[in-house]
Amino acid sequence: MSQHYWSPVVRGLVPYVPGEQPKVANLVKLNTNENPYPPSPKVLEAMHAAINDSLRLYPDPDASALKKAIADYYAVDSSQVFVGNGSDEVLAHVFLAFFKQAQPILFPDISYSFYKVYCGLYEIDYRTIPLNEQFQIDVADYHHLNGGIIFPNPNAPTGCLLSLTAIERLLQANPDSVVVVDEAYIDFGGKTAISLINQYPQLLVTQTLSKSRSLAGLRVGLAVGQAHLIEALERVKNSFNSYPMDKLAIAGGVAAFEDKAYFQQTCQAIIDSRELLAQQLKDLGFDVLPSAANFVFARHPHKEAVQIAAALREKAIIVRHFKLTRIEQFLRITIGTEAENQALVEALKVL
Amino acid sequence: MSQHYWSPVVRGLVPYVPGEQPKVANLVKLNTNENPYPPSPKVLEAMHAAINDSLRLYPDPDASALKKAIADYYAVDSSQVFVGNGSDEVLAHVFLAFFKQAQPILFPDISYSFYKVYCGLYEIDYRTIPLNEQFQIDVADYHHLNGGIIFPNPNAPTGCLLSLTAIERLLQANPDSVVVVDEAYIDFGGKTAISLINQYPQLLVTQTLSKSRSLAGLRVGLAVGQAHLIEALERVKNSFNSYPMDKLAIAGGVAAFEDKAYFQQTCQAIIDSRELLAQQLKDLGFDVLPSAANFVFARHPHKEAVQIAAALREKAIIVRHFKLTRIEQFLRITIGTEAENQALVEALKVL
Repeated sequence: MSQHYWSPVVRGLVPYVPGEQPKVANLVKLNTNENPYPPSPKVLEAMHAAINDSLRLYPDPDASALKKAIADYYAVDSSQVFVGNGSDEVLAHVFLAFFKQAQPILFPDISYSFYKVYCGLYEIDYRTIPLNEQFQIDVADYHHLNGGIIFPNPNAPTGCLLSLTAIERLLQANPDSVVVVDEAYIDFGGKTAISLINQYPQLLVTQTLSKSRSLAGLRVGLAVGQAHLIEALERVKNSFNSYPMDKLAIAGGVAAFEDKAYFQQTCQAIIDSRELLAQQLKDLGFDVLPSAANFVFARHPHKEAVQIAAALREKAIIVRHFKLTRIEQFLRITIGTEAENQALVEALKVL
Repeated sequence: MSQHYWSPVVRGLVPYVPGEQPKVANLVKLNTNENPYPPSPKVLEAMHAAINDSLRLYPDPDASALKKAIADYYAVDSSQVFVGNGSDEVLAHVFLAFFKQAQPILFPDISYSFYKVYCGLYEIDYRTIPLNEQFQIDVADYHHLNGGIIFPNPNAPTGCLLSLTAIERLLQANPDSVVVVDEAYIDFGGKTAISLINQYPQLLVTQTLSKSRSLAGLRVGLAVGQAHLIEALERVKNSFNSYPMDKLAIAGGVAAFEDKAYFQQTCQAIIDSRELLAQQLKDLGFDVLPSAANFVFARHPHKEAVQIAAALREKAIIVRHFKLTRIEQFLRITIGTEAENQALVEALKVL
């Protein structure tokens, strides 16, 4: 009975498994790359103001106020901005809008594990390109005929950053299919490729408010690219859900882009903490990949990652371990508050 | 250039066009079936309480609290409940989870116009079944081999209700594919088919909080059916967006199902207003279809619908007109507050 009524495509799906959201208090939660700092007080204020009788009405289906705030922030036109219910929704629409092509799409073998899932959902062929021995993307490896290219920058879960120069080389070598730079973690030390969109008609940049803007609980994501790419995303969005952005998400998102001072201050605090934690981990004997994200990716040459993770969990500290080839000895550790990071370091010292 | 990078499927899409959300004050807005009454004060209170520092964390990906509130309300198990970012998202997942089959799906020729759009998005074949001369669904017309059946109950935009007896006849004649009863408007006078789910493994019922619970601006929709159907929806959802429900939507949705008194009172007020307005429209010479929804569907035997709509618009009253075969002379008029309804009646008197 159980699968009798399912569409054939659903029977074959391997859904994404998000990091745990345990319903336990006093946990040192370093497993899902959330920001250790709360959202800007101005965001909370704007959200309170949006709770009123007008919730009986549909939100603006175009979320124009939010698109304008993002366009102003990045000095692009509103017609170059798309918004969605978290960047996962934005990425889902990206896969259907651009990547359902005759040729397979390309992405790194070690990358955001949702990409394969979208391919399953929309029956898109893909080919993975191995990271090099230093776990870095080498753009020279992406010169295959393709239906599109996507990679996170900085990459996840490695944290490694690709330079804009390298991204331009990739774009110049690949003019005929869409190149998506998934910048979920860009604000923690990278330079956004949004500066390149007017030069490259095939470039689309995605971002999220879940990480650097401390709004994982609100669900806001975005894409920036030339208007002809945004139009394709709008067509898919308007064939899926006319109103993906609720009134609170629009209000909170606008305020998040307006409060630049708070944003810069919290990003800098996380960058400083990351550099300290990376050094402390190295002092404990870990190999730590160079990170431009709000997490570090580290392995110990003599200790099993799965055992370290289990021992930390006994001390109510959770980190993320991926049981995947090439990275099974790594742990992905989100940068927490200074107190959380030091609790982690102390726990690792006595393992 | 413009479509060069698009997937072939996107080039052929005809997106849904939602009713206008004009950014104009003092409008009598009777065009998108919003509730004229504000959300329950308890909902607004619960949402205020959810605005706090924990917004930095991801929401519960399973929205368990909301599923439980819905399960308790309908006396079903939580495993029989699915929730999404508005019922449009729920319906989108339904189409992919169940309707992407070898056989075409069936729905009424006059129905929610998004159904065709989902078919375009997911490349699903469909066949429309004409409503009878009274603009009613006749379940005897649905005995074709099919990949699924979907219809709104009450139907949109007609407002006409199908009895549970008729729905059971349809289910008994169609045991092998999923039957979706889209109950966006059921709380305004119909009986929900949720009472039938344990008898019929192929029955799925969808609802929204946008209409009867005055929360169009929050985006919460749901589906109820046997666990094996819900599992298929979860697989699609977890292959699309792990966290579609933000923390505010979960908190507000829970409170909406808990405040039964406010819900019953506002629904009854709308039902009473509908009956009055329907009679007043008949007195003005309109044909009014029997409605169990929060709108009426009416035509005037001698006046052009498009001209009536234009004349009303000049008086800052907007209603919905669909330029579609068989119903081009009808207007869909949302039930407003008593003051709004009477403003409409007065405007129609002098046309």
